[in-house]
Amino acid sequence: MNHLIDILELSEQEIDRLIEIAEDIIARPEQYSEACRGKKLATLFFEPSTRTRLSFEAAMYELGGNVLGFSEAQSSSASKGESVADTVRVVGCYADIIAMRHPKEGAPVVACQSSTVPVINAGDGGHNHPTQTLTDLLTIHREKGRLNNLTIGLCGDLKFGRTVHSLLLAMSRYENINFVLISPEELKIPDYLKEDFLMKNHVPFTETTSLEEAMPKLDILYMTRVQRERFFNEQDYIRLRDSYILTADKLKAAKDDMCILHPLPRVNEISKDVDSDSRACYFKQALNGKFIRMALILKLLGLEREGGKAL
Amino acid sequence: MNHLIDILELSEQEIDRLIEIAEDIIARPEQYSEACRGKKLATLFFEPSTRTRLSFEAAMYELGGNVLGFSEAQSSSASKGESVADTVRVVGCYADIIAMRHPKEGAPVVACQSSTVPVINAGDGGHNHPTQTLTDLLTIHREKGRLNNLTIGLCGDLKFGRTVHSLLLAMSRYENINFVLISPEELKIPDYLKEDFLMKNHVPFTETTSLEEAMPKLDILYMTRVQRERFFNEQDYIRLRDSYILTADKLKAAKDDMCILHPLPRVNEISKDVDSDSRACYFKQALNGKFIRMALILKLLGLEREGGKAL
Amino acid sequence: MNHLIDILELSEQEIDRLIEIAEDIIARPEQYSEACRGKKLATLFFEPSTRTRLSFEAAMYELGGNVLGFSEAQSSSASKGESVADTVRVVGCYADIIAMRHPKEGAPVVACQSSTVPVINAGDGGHNHPTQTLTDLLTIHREKGRLNNLTIGLCGDLKFGRTVHSLLLAMSRYENINFVLISPEELKIPDYLKEDFLMKNHVPFTETTSLEEAMPKLDILYMTRVQRERFFNEQDYIRLRDSYILTADKLKAAKDDMCILHPLPRVNEISKDVDSDSRACYFKQALNGKFIRMALILKLLGLEREGGKAL
Repeated sequence: MNHLIDILELSEQEIDRLIEIAEDIIARPEQYSEACRGKKLATLFFEPSTRTRLSFEAAMYELGGNVLGFSEAQSSSASKGESVADTVRVVGCYADIIAMRHPKEGAPVVACQSSTVPVINAGDGGHNHPTQTLTDLLTIHREKGRLNNLTIGLCGDLKFGRTVHSLLLAMSRYENINFVLISPEELKIPDYLKEDFLMKNHVPFTETTSLEEAMPKLDILYMTRVQRERFFNEQDYIRLRDSYILTADKLKAAKDDMCILHPLPRVNEISKDVDSDSRACYFKQALNGKFIRMALILKLLGLEREGGKAL
Repeated sequence: MNHLIDILELSEQEIDRLIEIAEDIIARPEQYSEACRGKKLATLFFEPSTRTRLSFEAAMYELGGNVLGFSEAQSSSASKGESVADTVRVVGCYADIIAMRHPKEGAPVVACQSSTVPVINAGDGGHNHPTQTLTDLLTIHREKGRLNNLTIGLCGDLKFGRTVHSLLLAMSRYENINFVLISPEELKIPDYLKEDFLMKNHVPFTETTSLEEAMPKLDILYMTRVQRERFFNEQDYIRLRDSYILTADKLKAAKDDMCILHPLPRVNEISKDVDSDSRACYFKQALNGKFIRMALILKLLGLEREGGKAL
Repeated sequence: MNHLIDILELSEQEIDRLIEIAEDIIARPEQYSEACRGKKLATLFFEPSTRTRLSFEAAMYELGGNVLGFSEAQSSSASKGESVADTVRVVGCYADIIAMRHPKEGAPVVACQSSTVPVINAGDGGHNHPTQTLTDLLTIHREKGRLNNLTIGLCGDLKFGRTVHSLLLAMSRYENINFVLISPEELKIPDYLKEDFLMKNHVPFTETTSLEEAMPKLDILYMTRVQRERFFNEQDYIRLRDSYILTADKLKAAKDDMCILHPLPRVNEISKDVDSDSRACYFKQALNGKFIRMALILKLLGLEREGGKAL
């Protein structure tokens, strides 16, 4: 494990280990506050993503390290025509580990091939965003105490939603996972995932257009945004939008210990009155994102034992 | 005192305490160099303000803490339609305290309502900028040894100038303060401040269009910029502009210990030949801005005693 | 030595001393990891230059210091009409040393005249970029063990290339330096350098349009980019471009210990198949840029002995 480009590169054991480190960081943060003293993280964000960038930066600071980088491409050498390979090669002179966000799919793969330091994919186009998926897994593990024996509802835009695709692929490897795929017809999960993955691997799932109908069965409800620009016409958008907005009222039909996730930012797909419900876990999820990134940085720098050594 | 949104939220006692902490930081900086070790400040600047941002960042670094954030809105999640409330809620997972600059009045109030960590208003539109006012108060206190018994000239754009409005409101609470309001007719102080505040509260003031005439009486001269875009026509601007430019020549009529303040940046309203005059305090004021922000961060984090504990 | 604006301000002795400090940092980095504890570097980049900025920031972090600043002018007070002199005067309240990049020639000179802290020119327009030249000198010294008795090929755009002009001026002061100036007719070295400097000072040089012809004699080959926009017409550009691209094939004629430098970023003037050649030093050069900047920061802050004190 030298880089993290795609969540599927990680074995179940490796994911378990990252979750274990993260849980230990949460339990004993003071043991890790100097683990990366003298180390530097470079955040190379060729497109803006404040939430992800700040999460990585907070993670590195809480490990005692430092951060440098850029938050959008126009501040980078890319505007002078430099290749991603060269940028990463040079940044490896200035930092010990790189978190890269890039609008082009595959850029982080190219980057890790020429890098002399570990590269973490912090999102490449509509493709991979493995630290988001790790965040989701840590949150499920913390909230439910397990990653198996779960009925997971994925709701909203299942056609283009990168985070739900990754979560589906990652969770399918655990035992007795049942997916409920909740979306309008126009935004159903793509065939390459449904037929070539779920069906072929005998992963149980059902499809529905009704959030209300699905609600009572779910252990996890993963909400995503239904974006206006995905629809051919405005009427369809307006007609469908409200069906996929989670409200306190719709929540009444849910289990008491159901766990609501959302990768954030949200616009209006979860109404504010849900925030105070104990089942709302999306802000905890944002916090978990910091802890799992701390675990990942430690692991990739070979400092995981360093962190907890005092015990 | 959990947040600082408006200078008028602070009692005289609280302001005195902040000044006291700042004076102690200036006297014994080494006592504070580790006070915020392991803490993180988020600078959320939805519009650029280099001076204010760097002042906050320097303050946090001199307390041993770290800094993360963004310096303009296009690098933030706001561009994806996220509410200020959600941004602040998430950033509270990554930082221990937030300094927020926002072009919309009231945004910091909204922010502090959903924040789990202290929020400092670092300027919201033409409304409040309380750390600038605290900077002004600390500077007056350091230069004159008191905040009462002063004749204070406010010069330039008194109609739109946010900093002079705040200073006027804050200083009026001290005893025996006399204001001299120096501006062209077009840029006189608004009625809601003159009639509803100064007159109603029996705060003594005089109005004049002549800087020369006012000069001999002043203990403090607070200069502001007269902006071209405030005038209906160019001739008026050119005719009036020079009357409100402070020069070494005009200074001859001032008291020997008068104190010249300016919130900066200046364009041409104080001529360069004034910079070397011992009465010019605007660069000291910039320095004081760092110290009062250190005091404020300590206070809001409940670490004020931590800072000076070694004594 | 209070500021560094132009490489020619430095005596040979001062350059030797900086190289000596840098070599000690490389040999014993742990001796320097706390040398700038509590100090702050301001990176004031009025135009973007990621590589240079990250190099300065990495340098300061590896000395145990902190960094604040901006990476492009639109985030700065310059957009409000503030003079460079005022910006620097204020930033001196927030930082102990300033690295400034500015699109206008001469801006750093103006800056250092009003600054209360050391100013390093991190590039001003097409004029000076002294830390790049120091980087080149350190790299030559580390690779060849000396700065004298060298045949140095400068290849590509010798008319506009800022880095080759500075290197030529700096290296001419050492004994027995022989330049080979390799460029198309259109991009030959300007007369003020050829006649008024090289000839007048009896520095030996030859001019050629053929990289192949020059190759066998060279101890150092300094490559630069031939930019399309320098040519009157596209045909000339296309015809000439390939002559000044370094390939593994052309390298066969070079000495075994020739050292290839490039200030980076490159576009296509060095083909990727050269990267794995042991003579390719341009990534080492990027790394050396960090070390020489560490040495320079220590020197300007008067902390050079502090750094190595434990020995």
